[in-house]
Amino acid sequence: MIGHFNYAILGTGALGGFYGARLQRAGFEVHFLLHGDYEHVSQHGLIVESPNGDFALPSVRAYCDTAKMPRCDVVVVSLKTTHNYLLPKLLPNVLKDDGVVLVLQNGLGVEEEVARIVGAERVMGGLCFLCSNKIAPFHIRHLAYGEIKLAEYAANYQPQGITERMRQIAADFETAGISIHLEADLLFARWQKLVWNIPDNGLSVILDAQTDELMENASTRTLVEELMWEVVKGAAACDRQIPNTFIDHMLDYTLNMTPYRTSMKIDYDEKRPMEVETMFGNPLRMAQNNGVELSKIAMLYQQLKFLDEINCR
Amino acid sequence: MIGHFNYAILGTGALGGFYGARLQRAGFEVHFLLHGDYEHVSQHGLIVESPNGDFALPSVRAYCDTAKMPRCDVVVVSLKTTHNYLLPKLLPNVLKDDGVVLVLQNGLGVEEEVARIVGAERVMGGLCFLCSNKIAPFHIRHLAYGEIKLAEYAANYQPQGITERMRQIAADFETAGISIHLEADLLFARWQKLVWNIPDNGLSVILDAQTDELMENASTRTLVEELMWEVVKGAAACDRQIPNTFIDHMLDYTLNMTPYRTSMKIDYDEKRPMEVETMFGNPLRMAQNNGVELSKIAMLYQQLKFLDEINCR
Repeated sequence: MIGHFNYAILGTGALGGFYGARLQRAGFEVHFLLHGDYEHVSQHGLIVESPNGDFALPSVRAYCDTAKMPRCDVVVVSLKTTHNYLLPKLLPNVLKDDGVVLVLQNGLGVEEEVARIVGAERVMGGLCFLCSNKIAPFHIRHLAYGEIKLAEYAANYQPQGITERMRQIAADFETAGISIHLEADLLFARWQKLVWNIPDNGLSVILDAQTDELMENASTRTLVEELMWEVVKGAAACDRQIPNTFIDHMLDYTLNMTPYRTSMKIDYDEKRPMEVETMFGNPLRMAQNNGVELSKIAMLYQQLKFLDEINCR
Repeated sequence: MIGHFNYAILGTGALGGFYGARLQRAGFEVHFLLHGDYEHVSQHGLIVESPNGDFALPSVRAYCDTAKMPRCDVVVVSLKTTHNYLLPKLLPNVLKDDGVVLVLQNGLGVEEEVARIVGAERVMGGLCFLCSNKIAPFHIRHLAYGEIKLAEYAANYQPQGITERMRQIAADFETAGISIHLEADLLFARWQKLVWNIPDNGLSVILDAQTDELMENASTRTLVEELMWEVVKGAAACDRQIPNTFIDHMLDYTLNMTPYRTSMKIDYDEKRPMEVETMFGNPLRMAQNNGVELSKIAMLYQQLKFLDEINCR
């Protein structure tokens, strides 16, 4: 990879559409894969509403088939993880030989899956801290935040430190106005993000609750904290030590944040499959492979699998 | 207590109304305490619809104040446990010196509460296996079953064996067509009943599910079984050994039963407070006092307390 990178966005939703549109607006060549909204976006481009300034891209490079896309330096995976079974067909078409796949998805374990398709040396992970909704087929509403934590992947999630490739991609995103934090250890970053994601996504669906309601009630406030401790225990089983102070930090953060409908709750309410396996199943299995049971998270997982089946049948 | 007993029914709902009406029809003197439905029942009596035969009692002894009731030999407590805070006011008015309070409620620990009011030697417990609904203020629909397991209470739930008083009350109920099983150990019987009550009442509310749905889904089928094992562990902490075969028996029973809306789910749907403390809180605390944590049941309890607060505010 030399000179300016070009980008493919696999999954032009609230997240992929937002980051891709920002990159295109900054002058990068961006190719958007769409499915249901392909016609709309081909004709109308994309509109982004954002507290950082609204903008429209009347024309974007839209595709409904990766066979028609050029090979790209950076292939951003921003599908819902429930569609990851498509990746073995999508990725080989669109990734340059010296290109890299950037997994911008929730949960754990997707980089391992992608590595089996394209090789571990061509995989990176990104953790997005973004509140954004798609309110119409070509209309994205960015609500808040947007930072990405970026890290290299290697077999068994061995930490890779900060590489030149990371800096190059970070520079592109920063040019597009997206703040990037470089992480030396992808698995640490992913477990750390689960400290918030597991209790709040899980309980918001199971109890039909917003984050503020969960924190106001003494019982669920305690349960949120207990679940956070279980995530820390799971991380420790994988040799990642999340400091205890991080829990207090996340509880304060949740207490002070604007009441929020979690991404899993939005999927559930819209009758879409939930990302249960990547956000709950994979962390549980990873801890279990290291000899540690996470019993409360296991129970959330069982409850969510039940609700997911009933919701989507 | 000599000769024929008279009966007071504290709480004339689907359960107390059904048993009381059966006793009156068989010729016993029965005094019914009512609250919201007092006027209706005073004027119209009670109607019972049942697969064992429908019947009407055009006139019953109805009260809205225990001060106006005669003292009785057997005082049946059939309130929802969420109204048990009333018992210290209700019981002393209506219990004969040599009478007995028969607690026909769900869960654990109520006999201990009642003993603090009237003395342990005047308390018995009964476990009802009854499907019955109140479909109008004076109209009870009995759906199935009806057996009561009857046992004496003593301080710290020390087993008391089978007493003469138990046989006398059993004879009255049998005369009224209610089948009675005499139990030597009240605490054993109560824990055993929780093997079914805890998973099915809890999960039916939290997951908005019927018993057949919980058994058809592989995740919740496993969770139901794991919760049953935790109840057995709680019983063991209290020196009550529930045989392993009982779990298989209860799973088979749940698989084969007619899909059923649990009593807790009915309360939740009707926006009434749920019996969370007696069915979940007290068993948890009793196990904990004996040094055993029941972590999955604790999580159900936390989830139910949240839903109860939201539902009733």
